[in-house]
Amino acid sequence: MTSKKLVNTVAGCADDALAGLVACNPNLHLLQGHRVALRSDLDSLKGRVALLSGGGSGHEPAHAGFVGKGMLTGVIAGAVFTSPAVGSILAAIRAVAQAGTVGTLLIVKNYTGDRLNFGLAREQARAEGIPVEMVVIGDDSAFTVLKKAGRRGLCGTVLIHKVAGALAEAGVGLEEITNRVSVVAKAMGTLGVSLSSCSVPGSRPTFELSPDEVELGLGSSVVLMVNNLGGLSFLELGIMADAAVRSLEGRGVKIARALVGTFMSALEMPGISLTLLLVDEPLLKLIDAETTASAWPNVAKVSVTGRKRSRAAPAEPLEVPDSTATGGLASRQTVLVLERVCATLLGLEEHLNALDRAAGDGDCGTTHSRAARAIQGWLKEGPPPASPAQLLSKLSLLLLEKMGGSSGALYGLFLTAAAQPLKAKTDLPAWSAAMDAGLEAMQKYGKAAPGDRTMLDSLWAAGQELQAWKSPGANLFHVLTKAVQSAEAAAEATKTMEAGAGRASYISSARLDQPDPGAVATAAILRAILEALQQEGV
Amino acid sequence: MTSKKLVNTVAGCADDALAGLVACNPNLHLLQGHRVALRSDLDSLKGRVALLSGGGSGHEPAHAGFVGKGMLTGVIAGAVFTSPAVGSILAAIRAVAQAGTVGTLLIVKNYTGDRLNFGLAREQARAEGIPVEMVVIGDDSAFTVLKKAGRRGLCGTVLIHKVAGALAEAGVGLEEITNRVSVVAKAMGTLGVSLSSCSVPGSRPTFELSPDEVELGLGSSVVLMVNNLGGLSFLELGIMADAAVRSLEGRGVKIARALVGTFMSALEMPGISLTLLLVDEPLLKLIDAETTASAWPNVAKVSVTGRKRSRAAPAEPLEVPDSTATGGLASRQTVLVLERVCATLLGLEEHLNALDRAAGDGDCGTTHSRAARAIQGWLKEGPPPASPAQLLSKLSLLLLEKMGGSSGALYGLFLTAAAQPLKAKTDLPAWSAAMDAGLEAMQKYGKAAPGDRTMLDSLWAAGQELQAWKSPGANLFHVLTKAVQSAEAAAEATKTMEAGAGRASYISSARLDQPDPGAVATAAILRAILEALQQEGV
Repeated sequence: MTSKKLVNTVAGCADDALAGLVACNPNLHLLQGHRVALRSDLDSLKGRVALLSGGGSGHEPAHAGFVGKGMLTGVIAGAVFTSPAVGSILAAIRAVAQAGTVGTLLIVKNYTGDRLNFGLAREQARAEGIPVEMVVIGDDSAFTVLKKAGRRGLCGTVLIHKVAGALAEAGVGLEEITNRVSVVAKAMGTLGVSLSSCSVPGSRPTFELSPDEVELGLGSSVVLMVNNLGGLSFLELGIMADAAVRSLEGRGVKIARALVGTFMSALEMPGISLTLLLVDEPLLKLIDAETTASAWPNVAKVSVTGRKRSRAAPAEPLEVPDSTATGGLASRQTVLVLERVCATLLGLEEHLNALDRAAGDGDCGTTHSRAARAIQGWLKEGPPPASPAQLLSKLSLLLLEKMGGSSGALYGLFLTAAAQPLKAKTDLPAWSAAMDAGLEAMQKYGKAAPGDRTMLDSLWAAGQELQAWKSPGANLFHVLTKAVQSAEAAAEATKTMEAGAGRASYISSARLDQPDPGAVATAAILRAILEALQQEGV
Repeated sequence: MTSKKLVNTVAGCADDALAGLVACNPNLHLLQGHRVALRSDLDSLKGRVALLSGGGSGHEPAHAGFVGKGMLTGVIAGAVFTSPAVGSILAAIRAVAQAGTVGTLLIVKNYTGDRLNFGLAREQARAEGIPVEMVVIGDDSAFTVLKKAGRRGLCGTVLIHKVAGALAEAGVGLEEITNRVSVVAKAMGTLGVSLSSCSVPGSRPTFELSPDEVELGLGSSVVLMVNNLGGLSFLELGIMADAAVRSLEGRGVKIARALVGTFMSALEMPGISLTLLLVDEPLLKLIDAETTASAWPNVAKVSVTGRKRSRAAPAEPLEVPDSTATGGLASRQTVLVLERVCATLLGLEEHLNALDRAAGDGDCGTTHSRAARAIQGWLKEGPPPASPAQLLSKLSLLLLEKMGGSSGALYGLFLTAAAQPLKAKTDLPAWSAAMDAGLEAMQKYGKAAPGDRTMLDSLWAAGQELQAWKSPGANLFHVLTKAVQSAEAAAEATKTMEAGAGRASYISSARLDQPDPGAVATAAILRAILEALQQEGV
């Protein structure tokens, strides 16, 4: 079976891909009748040297992605992994000559077919009187014993596009560009690693970072290219970049610039290549020169090696005791309330899990028990803060860290928001405002509304009753008792609700005939608070 | 079995990937103790609004690739596909506040975990007195009936980074940025297509290019984003871009800018997403504003729709008859020579294939027969050119087109180069020079030298003998006969040669005990030419 591909036809895929890049990039034109992309501002290049490259398709964004001011003048694309037609190469040479360029440099990867076809087009163009030079790039460092065919042309070719492009843009002549890039090409090596053949899962691939012909050592300055061969995740690309930087710097090599991305792929091959180019200051200037080529990355013009890579995290803000709001419960009473809440939740573990199995992933009781045990452990460490605002903030952090999941975040949100109105005052209106603030935050970030069959339902019902605390002379227990009853009724009423948020919203309402476990849990917490306070006779 | 990945450890992969990006990008700093990347020039942002985004890892280059001047101030990364920790979000907010920014906008993708964790960090930061706003981006257009949870945040989030970044860079305040991007986020939709579930091989995927909430029609102006979800080849990305542009323009939609690349991935998922953002001129200015963010592409600041996308190929140069060099053979003699060459090659087909099976892919005879039949067909079309230069040039084009492969290119190269010295003169010294030029071109581009067991061996031996034609009074037949004998001896001698180039160079010399088929073919061609000329008595 052939592999799945997002193509229209196999025969037309190289044409369609090039047409797409040209359609999306106003800097490019197609040359009619050929698989050739040229700069659309060709007629502004009078008197300059033209740079043409190309090769088989399947290595995108190479080479069309590197056409633009400061890089290539044009590219000729073959069918997938097939050298381009001589006639198209010749047509491209003629087109740039006709536009008034003074000569053409062909930048060719070292593959027999490319060498022959570009070579032939060159000879034919020269026979027509067009000055054409050709450099053959072989940067592959995978073999230490060289075959006659020489090194293959790999991702380093893109660096040659850049260097030649900067020179051509600066008005340098054909012969000098040819000589300069021929020298640069010798100071470069590339090594590829592909998951399909070279890597053991879970173990770090061995990098041979020193290409055999490029002498690297203490103080050597290089440009590093970390190239996605196509199908590797960018996550892994970052990991490889990290390993490459550490390995090179560990050997005393100075990384002047690091380019990370997809530059020259092999369709969707899940692998990378690493290219190193030895650079001095003049060469680095050419690498840094401006270009409009779409696939050339935004590279910061500063050295990678030798800079600070992290910054200290700011300290946690100092906790200023809320001097006006230390009222409320005595420490002993707080402990008793919290202990009763914890005991209640631990007792409900199995019941809540059972309710959750019908609608969620069956861990609602487990999650609440984890929270209860965390609070119990915390209470053993010392007395809880006397300030209600600080108490709720501390509980919020504790639940976030120890309870986990969406429930932990929702309780955390509720408590953080509820703490704010209690900073200034701790009277009954302030506690009602705290409930309002908590409910508001929970709705805002959790996107649930009352009636959506969530923990919000019972809390919201209680909050409605607690509005009475805002009236002068309101009674703590009278209002709280009504609030708890209302919460319990609301929890029971979730039986008949259709889930509008949370995990249960993926289940058909017909299958939900039990109350929502979150709503049951919060109603139970409220009752535990009420009963503990009544027992203590606050 | 778990999938192969280029990671060091599963637990550390998100950290390593972020460290790698920061290591390679001097514009970034890590925040110590957190999976947070911040602009390294944070202290230059006094008085400006800070922009933070983030989410689970696995969507690289989002979001760290979009940190930089003109885009994000920083990002907080979670584990793979997991929301970032509240503590780290809070640490990032504190860090940018401490650096002197006047407020922070959190740009959050619409996932429950992200909403809750960013929301909670926001509430905590506000409780510390830091002004923090939050926009939740939901650009997914895959569902027409919305669940309560709303649209998921997809690649359009990157456009929000860009718009907010340009506004922050321009000194706009927190409230206005929040309002502006909230409006922009509503004019945007994204649709994803993945090969793993949605595409039929060989057929074009159906695009629903009009997100249901974004009204597109004649004259609508949009920014198009064609996003690689990770594992799709860039070839296919180009094909999809082509289809998207044609489909949109076919509906009368004006594409103001098109961004093609990997912006927000899902590890190595083989698919794409298409994002459309309705734009007017002021919004387009924000999209076009400069940024140093490494993953933002080089986008030309001109409209994609409404421009010419191709340029006419230049006409073939007119053939100027080489008036001085029409000498040589009469047309009838040329035909007889070529016919004898063709008959010889056809007769050798099986023999050459047999020789090639030992060392190559067994098609040397077939390839030469294809060339012979092409020449026979061409001869039937009319008389061959009288000028030897034109004759060789025509044969070169014919073989290139019809013979194909490396052999076609090598014969083409030989004939093109050989034609040049025959333009001015056609005497015996000129024919010897033609042989020299052909041999030089073949060696130069084919990278084979005499002794490498290729077709060059017999041609080169013949060329050595033909030097005698350069002496005054040299005899045509005497020299040519010696050249043919020498070529045949050289072909025979390839038996004992180790292959140094061509396909046979991959075979151990011990297995090669037959002569090289290419060398045998060229020697036979030379003998056919000699015998035809002798028969005619030129």
